[in-house]
Amino acid sequence: MSDLRSSSHSTGGLTKARIEALADGVFAIAMTLLVLDLKVPSVDHANPGLLLPALLAQWPKYFSYVISFFMLGIYWIGHHNQFHVIRRSDRGFLWINLLYFMTISLLPFSTALLGEYSDTRIALIIYGGNLAVISTVLYWHWYYATHNYRLIDSDIDPQIVTLAARRIFTGVIVYLFAISVSFLSVSMSLVVYLVAPLIFLLPGKIDRFWR
Amino acid sequence: MSDLRSSSHSTGGLTKARIEALADGVFAIAMTLLVLDLKVPSVDHANPGLLLPALLAQWPKYFSYVISFFMLGIYWIGHHNQFHVIRRSDRGFLWINLLYFMTISLLPFSTALLGEYSDTRIALIIYGGNLAVISTVLYWHWYYATHNYRLIDSDIDPQIVTLAARRIFTGVIVYLFAISVSFLSVSMSLVVYLVAPLIFLLPGKIDRFWR
Amino acid sequence: MSDLRSSSHSTGGLTKARIEALADGVFAIAMTLLVLDLKVPSVDHANPGLLLPALLAQWPKYFSYVISFFMLGIYWIGHHNQFHVIRRSDRGFLWINLLYFMTISLLPFSTALLGEYSDTRIALIIYGGNLAVISTVLYWHWYYATHNYRLIDSDIDPQIVTLAARRIFTGVIVYLFAISVSFLSVSMSLVVYLVAPLIFLLPGKIDRFWR
Amino acid sequence: MSDLRSSSHSTGGLTKARIEALADGVFAIAMTLLVLDLKVPSVDHANPGLLLPALLAQWPKYFSYVISFFMLGIYWIGHHNQFHVIRRSDRGFLWINLLYFMTISLLPFSTALLGEYSDTRIALIIYGGNLAVISTVLYWHWYYATHNYRLIDSDIDPQIVTLAARRIFTGVIVYLFAISVSFLSVSMSLVVYLVAPLIFLLPGKIDRFWR
Repeated sequence: MSDLRSSSHSTGGLTKARIEALADGVFAIAMTLLVLDLKVPSVDHANPGLLLPALLAQWPKYFSYVISFFMLGIYWIGHHNQFHVIRRSDRGFLWINLLYFMTISLLPFSTALLGEYSDTRIALIIYGGNLAVISTVLYWHWYYATHNYRLIDSDIDPQIVTLAARRIFTGVIVYLFAISVSFLSVSMSLVVYLVAPLIFLLPGKIDRFWR
Repeated sequence: MSDLRSSSHSTGGLTKARIEALADGVFAIAMTLLVLDLKVPSVDHANPGLLLPALLAQWPKYFSYVISFFMLGIYWIGHHNQFHVIRRSDRGFLWINLLYFMTISLLPFSTALLGEYSDTRIALIIYGGNLAVISTVLYWHWYYATHNYRLIDSDIDPQIVTLAARRIFTGVIVYLFAISVSFLSVSMSLVVYLVAPLIFLLPGKIDRFWR
Repeated sequence: MSDLRSSSHSTGGLTKARIEALADGVFAIAMTLLVLDLKVPSVDHANPGLLLPALLAQWPKYFSYVISFFMLGIYWIGHHNQFHVIRRSDRGFLWINLLYFMTISLLPFSTALLGEYSDTRIALIIYGGNLAVISTVLYWHWYYATHNYRLIDSDIDPQIVTLAARRIFTGVIVYLFAISVSFLSVSMSLVVYLVAPLIFLLPGKIDRFWR
Repeated sequence: MSDLRSSSHSTGGLTKARIEALADGVFAIAMTLLVLDLKVPSVDHANPGLLLPALLAQWPKYFSYVISFFMLGIYWIGHHNQFHVIRRSDRGFLWINLLYFMTISLLPFSTALLGEYSDTRIALIIYGGNLAVISTVLYWHWYYATHNYRLIDSDIDPQIVTLAARRIFTGVIVYLFAISVSFLSVSMSLVVYLVAPLIFLLPGKIDRFWR
């Protein structure tokens, strides 16, 4: 048993590997479930010319599909970049991860809502709210792990900690901004959601530190 | 072939790794499938003010979503904590695992039932019954593995075995209690289900031994 | 490049690991998708006494859920036991695996069919046919890997090869038998499907060799 | 931190492993979700003779199920063969992978479209378009990784790079051809889709290099 205690580091490593395995599963499924919201339209087979217009008419669903897919990709990368420097795990960290996975798993729902009601402010607010909450939990995830070097090694450059925190916090700001814009104009808010993933596509200062 | 027999330990280790991989898959999917029960309401697009009330009206579905998500998280942690000390696998153990996964996979169904009929006693009984059965199988899983050190190393502190068993058994009691309460009051029973995950959120004595 | 060729063994090992990863994914998802066929009944909320009878009325769906879950478990174990001795992979083997995964992925469909039409011979034939085809592909999988020691080491006991083949072939026979019985009596055929998983639950001679 | 920088190679390796894990998840789920498009027909239980014709009537769905399953298999093999020689990862590569997963995840939708409207040209064009786009992204994936040995080792035989590129490009050509054929005859185009997977089933020159 003393053996078990002394091996707490490798035990933590095992936990870390399993959190990452669960994360990969949750992200892969959430990404793939998005497609269930794209429905095959019902048109008269005798009038095949109606199919293309019916498919085009559901463009808001494709729009929200693409945005959500890339947002899930960004959150997957963000989560997994953190695990590059996180060395250990503990009970609190496990629960923050579960909370993160729960907010991630909700995204297919808020995406379906946006796809159906892209002209309705409340749908845009809920979608942006979901993204803002995911980003906030990811921020907490990072803060919890790095504060007082709780789960990271002590020789980590403090700049990494700050730069990563700033990058995640940018997300929170962007989504709160998108929500605010929806009160002025629903279509302008949609544009903000479309542009948001591109911010994270570009490399930032943080990329000097990890790949 | 004698080689194969002598490597039975590492073979068991392989089995262990694959059970864990299947477990991560089943849990990730069960967690993510829960969202399929949250439906986008159908309201008149000309009257967007109806969307928010329609969304709020399905609060029991959000309620059961959150509880079930965290319960799945707790069962995932519970299962994976056991694998910290379990070293080997055998045919009986494989079947108990399959039974465990089957009861886990049923949870999206009993969750959907609770979300739709949160005012009906039978839905609460089935939901609590599902949780009680999962906990019972997890208890059996632990008992099978630890009894006579069947699948664990002989130098494991017996206290770990007892404390873990007690913690799992608490779950069985709590869910049977929640079921009993439903005969007095359906809403009080809902409160028990809401509080139950918090019991496992708090660290217990067992946490001194693993992380 | 000569380096690449000479490392063909470890390359094959990588392929093996990825086939197993895909297998775990496919099995976990097929198992968990089965639950989507269990529908929450629609009864009048003012008359909650109708819920339990409505739930009980769909007993054939629970019946087919349980059988299919355990059959998937058996096929998962069967597939993964083969990988205990299979050392390499090649293109043909990859395709047999894909064929195996395809027949596995069809099981949620034939299960839903059986759950809905358990009183109809054609549903029992299709269900048994699906199982018989899965077993046949698994047999081919084993034959392909072991014939002339194509993908296994040459020091494997030939008895393992024969015993495993016999065990898989038993499955083919049992499901063809169940199909035949359906021509006499649909309910007797259902009993055969119920009993079939138990055959594989019991340890066989082959279990002396692996765990 | 200098430690972190110098370990960028192994960090890249971690990223590589996680991309592969996400890939296995996405492919396993996309493959298994295809089955959700096979619906149990609704026929009168009193007239069981109607079930078989109703099942046979949806043959285009089985047709598109089988083609898409094997196409996903081919794309999974193609992606994973590339990772045999890819050693590192970077931000751009991560995004190309996400784009690849997005186009893969769309396949269950275009498959359902083909299954429902196999007699309609636009459905065949969209299905072929989806396959052509997947192949194009896979081509880009390979080009990005191998150009100037960006993510591969410098001792890789240039022939491997060329042969793999050619094989992927063949796919783009085949699907564009299938689309063109649909303008002449919808059923002839279906035959091209049926034959296409067989092209990749056969071993090519490239197979001399990897397994």
